Amino acid sequence: MRSLIDIVDFSVDELKEMMDVAIDIGNNPAKYSEACKGKKLATLFFEPSTRTRLSFEAAMWELGGSVIGFSSASSSSAAKGESYADTAKVISCYADIIAMRSPVEGSSYVASINASVPVINGGDGGHCHPTQTLADLLTIYKHKGGFDNLTVGFCGDLKYGRTVHSLIGALSRYNNVNIVLISPKELVLPDYIKEEVLEKNNMEYVEVTSLEDNIGCLDILYMTRIQRERFDDPEEYERLKNSYVLDVEKMAKAKSDMYVLHPLPRVNEISVKVDADPRAVYFEQCLNGKHMRMALILKLLEEKAKDPVIVDRFAGEKLLINRYRCTNTKCISQNEQELDQVFKVVDEENNVCRCIYCDKLA
Amino acid sequence: MRSLIDIVDFSVDELKEMMDVAIDIGNNPAKYSEACKGKKLATLFFEPSTRTRLSFEAAMWELGGSVIGFSSASSSSAAKGESYADTAKVISCYADIIAMRSPVEGSSYVASINASVPVINGGDGGHCHPTQTLADLLTIYKHKGGFDNLTVGFCGDLKYGRTVHSLIGALSRYNNVNIVLISPKELVLPDYIKEEVLEKNNMEYVEVTSLEDNIGCLDILYMTRIQRERFDDPEEYERLKNSYVLDVEKMAKAKSDMYVLHPLPRVNEISVKVDADPRAVYFEQCLNGKHMRMALILKLLEEKAKDPVIVDRFAGEKLLINRYRCTNTKCISQNEQELDQVFKVVDEENNVCRCIYCDKLA
Amino acid sequence: MRSLIDIVDFSVDELKEMMDVAIDIGNNPAKYSEACKGKKLATLFFEPSTRTRLSFEAAMWELGGSVIGFSSASSSSAAKGESYADTAKVISCYADIIAMRSPVEGSSYVASINASVPVINGGDGGHCHPTQTLADLLTIYKHKGGFDNLTVGFCGDLKYGRTVHSLIGALSRYNNVNIVLISPKELVLPDYIKEEVLEKNNMEYVEVTSLEDNIGCLDILYMTRIQRERFDDPEEYERLKNSYVLDVEKMAKAKSDMYVLHPLPRVNEISVKVDADPRAVYFEQCLNGKHMRMALILKLLEEKAKDPVIVDRFAGEKLLINRYRCTNTKCISQNEQELDQVFKVVDEENNVCRCIYCDKLA
Repeated sequence: MRSLIDIVDFSVDELKEMMDVAIDIGNNPAKYSEACKGKKLATLFFEPSTRTRLSFEAAMWELGGSVIGFSSASSSSAAKGESYADTAKVISCYADIIAMRSPVEGSSYVASINASVPVINGGDGGHCHPTQTLADLLTIYKHKGGFDNLTVGFCGDLKYGRTVHSLIGALSRYNNVNIVLISPKELVLPDYIKEEVLEKNNMEYVEVTSLEDNIGCLDILYMTRIQRERFDDPEEYERLKNSYVLDVEKMAKAKSDMYVLHPLPRVNEISVKVDADPRAVYFEQCLNGKHMRMALILKLLEEKAKDPVIVDRFAGEKLLINRYRCTNTKCISQNEQELDQVFKVVDEENNVCRCIYCDKLA
Repeated sequence: MRSLIDIVDFSVDELKEMMDVAIDIGNNPAKYSEACKGKKLATLFFEPSTRTRLSFEAAMWELGGSVIGFSSASSSSAAKGESYADTAKVISCYADIIAMRSPVEGSSYVASINASVPVINGGDGGHCHPTQTLADLLTIYKHKGGFDNLTVGFCGDLKYGRTVHSLIGALSRYNNVNIVLISPKELVLPDYIKEEVLEKNNMEYVEVTSLEDNIGCLDILYMTRIQRERFDDPEEYERLKNSYVLDVEKMAKAKSDMYVLHPLPRVNEISVKVDADPRAVYFEQCLNGKHMRMALILKLLEEKAKDPVIVDRFAGEKLLINRYRCTNTKCISQNEQELDQVFKVVDEENNVCRCIYCDKLA
Repeated sequence: MRSLIDIVDFSVDELKEMMDVAIDIGNNPAKYSEACKGKKLATLFFEPSTRTRLSFEAAMWELGGSVIGFSSASSSSAAKGESYADTAKVISCYADIIAMRSPVEGSSYVASINASVPVINGGDGGHCHPTQTLADLLTIYKHKGGFDNLTVGFCGDLKYGRTVHSLIGALSRYNNVNIVLISPKELVLPDYIKEEVLEKNNMEYVEVTSLEDNIGCLDILYMTRIQRERFDDPEEYERLKNSYVLDVEKMAKAKSDMYVLHPLPRVNEISVKVDADPRAVYFEQCLNGKHMRMALILKLLEEKAKDPVIVDRFAGEKLLINRYRCTNTKCISQNEQELDQVFKVVDEENNVCRCIYCDKLA
């Protein structure tokens, strides 16, 4: 049995296979309409997210299954102090597969090693949000046929945008992908991603501040929202929020086959007038997300049917138990009862270790 | 493709047809139990409403479909600043039909022109609540066989009660309907409804203050709740809330075939002791509401299957784009990103224009 | 038609029958997968409870039915002042059976006498929570084959723990059950339960303070959580919360066939390390709860099909109408509109009367 915690839990080949299934689902929905008959998805949303939750729920209904769950922490047992591990064990009595969102980093992973059903990470704080990346990948795949040799621009909040980090990680496994990082200075991509993803994989990248000057070279433009909740200082938010708005004028400078993606919700970083442009594929991306979630549910249930034993995501890695203590206050290792502190050695020579729950450095 | 925003979106003939379907549904539920198999209803409730939401959900399940949605704004993307237009586009990827409630007037209409599926207005602030009116109409129809020549009393909060306004509008299309308006002075029917609905359609009406003195002449009594949330001054609410309570004594003065309707929830404006009276049909009205929502879902899905192009609700009307600005702070035109201000000319001679979103005067 | 308000609403024979059905459901789920096709369960949760709500919902889906409902009072009409009686009448238009949780004691009973469908009490304040007791009973039954001659320990919060009170009441109907009450002095079992249940039924019981010293004699250990919300004084909570933690050391002193139950959620009163012990059956208990809820739904729907008239739970009892007034501020008789004050005479000689809604003394 496997779960999906981070996009890299799946190999490039597995992603390809799932994208082909997702495309088939879109073309032949009737073929899949009873694929999960009698199965139940639990959507455990400890923080609200309409889009992600409804996408999962729609996915399960279209597979002929059914859905139980909650949409905010206040309607859950978490309010009574229950651990994620126990919640996972209990929900395993009620559902065949779990999709979960929480502000606590690493919570989906902890759930996955305690549940007796597969767990899908629907977002664990600023850590991972792999099903969004599945939607992103399918959208690029459908319009470009693959990922090799593409020039992909990321625009907006590259500092806090976990969807950006995750998609860059996913793209790092293809050949000759060029990355153009477009953001204000305050919101540049964190150094560790440049070092451990871009540089480690020899990806070419540039950091620029102007969307207008750089849009012309792109094959894909990934726009992001500047989120109010990411800023300590509301004034800084006000000053920045209108930067990097994509409008009809800027679209005129882009290639005729440059596609615009956005993880949504959009506030005003893309003008509504751009929606009518055939290159604006962010609403199609939303539909793709549903199809990928359907393919994902099918895959994880199949894997469980083949082998109910939980596959160790860290098999073969060197782990340090209770040697270091994670300092990330949002990490599950600071919140969950009787949970070991575990770090994996990512670079033995330089003694670099990362928390297995939240990926923060020791 | 059509949506239901205001009760007058349907012709009198269409309403008749839907009521007959609703009655057939009540008599032969099994016949409809797979009518929406594989279809999904999204219930987007930006403000809570148990009754309306559960009625829609029960309706869809009884048609063999399934349901996704949210029950309060806090569990939705609205909290992140997403427009109603975008929400509608996204939800169109997940569901086959949308039922929506929001405090923002005109929001359902804006959703309907952006969605690629039919939208049902489940209440947009103080503006419209047409599915309640469908329940009201079916209840009268079942007990009276039609609407012509009836004397209909409205009692309670006639100022803010949108269900009252909507039902009066619906009744204005039948012949010789007499209206008896029973309310405290503070809560009389607004002038514009008297002028533009009652007088324009030559309906006879009287305004009175005593329920007891006037109950004897009625064929239908439509009771309403005096809602705390409508009052700026809590003391005024306390003073008025117990006025106009319908009790067993008043019922004794009514005709033996005078039926009592109430949109519910009831607080204490109808004594519980009245419930046992066969003329008290407000709980049956609730059941009728479910059957009408079933008929409505069927009709809108059929219309979409016939023609997926959105029917323009304002075809043939003279519209003024960005000439006036709506002053209603609850109107969607004050909230939604990049939305044109649009007014329709309702009386060219006297230069009377109304906002197409919220119906307020220019 | 019957409802389940208190565990004693079912006879010992009926419980045996339901447990056998529940076991069959666990062994042959496919046999029941369409048993409630076309039926709807309404889950009316006026206060949040993930576990209980999701267990009911999972139960109904596994019977082939569907589910509507709400998960907090704020998304319900209660916020608008609607009575439980009216809510029950309205929901009866939408669903075939109701599961309900509320902080108001007696609310499920009031709902049950107003609904036209069966009502299951999913917890009414500190009063009753019979479906938890169904889960407890099945768990004991599966491991011990019955209830006669068992020594059952209850540990933790015996004062406020309604699941404890309810299970003791259920066990009082079997033969030679010995009860060991293990708690701090502040949280001992209330006197009225000792008198009216234990002593009245001639059950042997002891009150002790040490878990360690008494665990060795037990056949069943029922652990409970010390709930923060039950304490007026947070300091007293902090002092007590770590008492009576069950750990591996204490388990070593227990019999090899002593099973540990817990109504969950667990906070830290049972060490996570105990989970691996085969005698720890609290997660299995959770699964048993789902199977018992399935058996219960089937039974109540069958009873309704046989006879739609509501069975009077107080038939044959002497009732006093509006003689006394209930002083329990959490009792529905203090909240619901136009509801009679009703007390039943439980001991005519000594003039002992209890409120029929909340069971408090007159």
